[in-house]
Amino acid sequence: MAGEIHQHETELEVRDYECDLQGVVNNAVYLHYLEHARHRWLEAVGLDFAALHARGIDLVAVRIEIDYKHPLRSHDRFVVRSSLRREGRLRIVIDQAIDRLPDNRLVARAKVVVACLEQGRPSAPQEVFGVFDRLARAE
Amino acid sequence: MAGEIHQHETELEVRDYECDLQGVVNNAVYLHYLEHARHRWLEAVGLDFAALHARGIDLVAVRIEIDYKHPLRSHDRFVVRSSLRREGRLRIVIDQAIDRLPDNRLVARAKVVVACLEQGRPSAPQEVFGVFDRLARAE
Amino acid sequence: MAGEIHQHETELEVRDYECDLQGVVNNAVYLHYLEHARHRWLEAVGLDFAALHARGIDLVAVRIEIDYKHPLRSHDRFVVRSSLRREGRLRIVIDQAIDRLPDNRLVARAKVVVACLEQGRPSAPQEVFGVFDRLARAE
Amino acid sequence: MAGEIHQHETELEVRDYECDLQGVVNNAVYLHYLEHARHRWLEAVGLDFAALHARGIDLVAVRIEIDYKHPLRSHDRFVVRSSLRREGRLRIVIDQAIDRLPDNRLVARAKVVVACLEQGRPSAPQEVFGVFDRLARAE
Repeated sequence: MAGEIHQHETELEVRDYECDLQGVVNNAVYLHYLEHARHRWLEAVGLDFAALHARGIDLVAVRIEIDYKHPLRSHDRFVVRSSLRREGRLRIVIDQAIDRLPDNRLVARAKVVVACLEQGRPSAPQEVFGVFDRLARAE
Repeated sequence: MAGEIHQHETELEVRDYECDLQGVVNNAVYLHYLEHARHRWLEAVGLDFAALHARGIDLVAVRIEIDYKHPLRSHDRFVVRSSLRREGRLRIVIDQAIDRLPDNRLVARAKVVVACLEQGRPSAPQEVFGVFDRLARAE
Repeated sequence: MAGEIHQHETELEVRDYECDLQGVVNNAVYLHYLEHARHRWLEAVGLDFAALHARGIDLVAVRIEIDYKHPLRSHDRFVVRSSLRREGRLRIVIDQAIDRLPDNRLVARAKVVVACLEQGRPSAPQEVFGVFDRLARAE
Repeated sequence: MAGEIHQHETELEVRDYECDLQGVVNNAVYLHYLEHARHRWLEAVGLDFAALHARGIDLVAVRIEIDYKHPLRSHDRFVVRSSLRREGRLRIVIDQAIDRLPDNRLVARAKVVVACLEQGRPSAPQEVFGVFDRLARAE
């Protein structure tokens, strides 16, 4: 993906309890990593996931595709790189990659489709999608 | 604990993702089992944890003591046995034991001290503690 | 998907700790449900995930696609329906659907691509893929 | 606890998926934080939890007492402070406190009793307990 600009990066490390009996990070945990990276990014641009929920605005993943390329193990450090693009009027796509550190070996690559609900109904509130559009243009 | 009457029992089985790299159920997961058993009990007597929260009433654990006696492993089935007693005006104690099935080997024993918050302040609302008192007397 | 034969079903219920601050089951938890359903199915046909790992044979998800259709909430019961098909020499695909009970509302639909590693290398051991082929033909 | 020397500190932050439907970090998650802090400490002094397990040496918690003083919420940063003391020939006690940052408000305080198993039997291998004794004396 030459030329791809990753707009947000967050560094994390594996916690032993995230490994399962195969000795590698459990599949579901990668979705936690990806979510945490997205929420940190939201926070960095002034969108507070919890505060939005309290006001009836919920960002929800409607589809996730994830390719597992190489497992993370105990003690591994890694970076989650995320970029964002608009998809139609009501959705955004966040492309995310997890790379192990320090060797940058690709661990997983994901595409997360996110929609927004206001009081439970699909919506694209300006306070949220205005930020998304600025992030998408920045790419 | 001869003569002990366990007032509520719930049967569960280990899920593989709950095991960590030691091949046994991770310590923290037992607290999940205990919580799930308590919530099922609440539900069985007409107290809905989520609905109470929505109305500003939160049951919270203020102290947990747990002794790990024998680890659970992949495929193990087990029962969580719970009993309840009042402790002072504002607290209850739930004694819980996890026993492996079918051999009833003791897996863990816990004492969970629970308080109630209304709008964030300690409280003993009758709709909740009235039920607790009936459960405690039933023992 | 008229005519689809779901070869395995497992019933579960939401545990409150699986819900996040939005009050619905967290995205990653659905992957736990799907994994647990797959492992139960393996167990039912004589393949023990933990025992295979102990002998150096690991079944690993290499790709997961999941569409989230309707969120599960506290107390919800649901069924995970799974079916299996071979994909090439080294992979199988498990199609899974989560339906809420008792109304059978579609909660999520997933496609899980699974590969097998022996001592860390891609493999298709007969003891495992022989079972998969019988399951696939049964459909 | 004036005069107490905390021998190890690790800083972490709440991840949103760790919060439950009450909007606060779920009880069981604090045990994850405490375990992760212990394993980081072990790692810092040359003991690798996963590598020890691979060689048949398992450190296991046999008892945990935890007092929940103030809940952590979305975005909170916190520090886990740990100190260690020997208890008899076969056990150590790790006292741990979680303090919110930057105000150092006490979140939880725990006492974790740890034993060591070699090939499943209680043991006090010198390579492990020698390190523990140095850490305990350092206090």
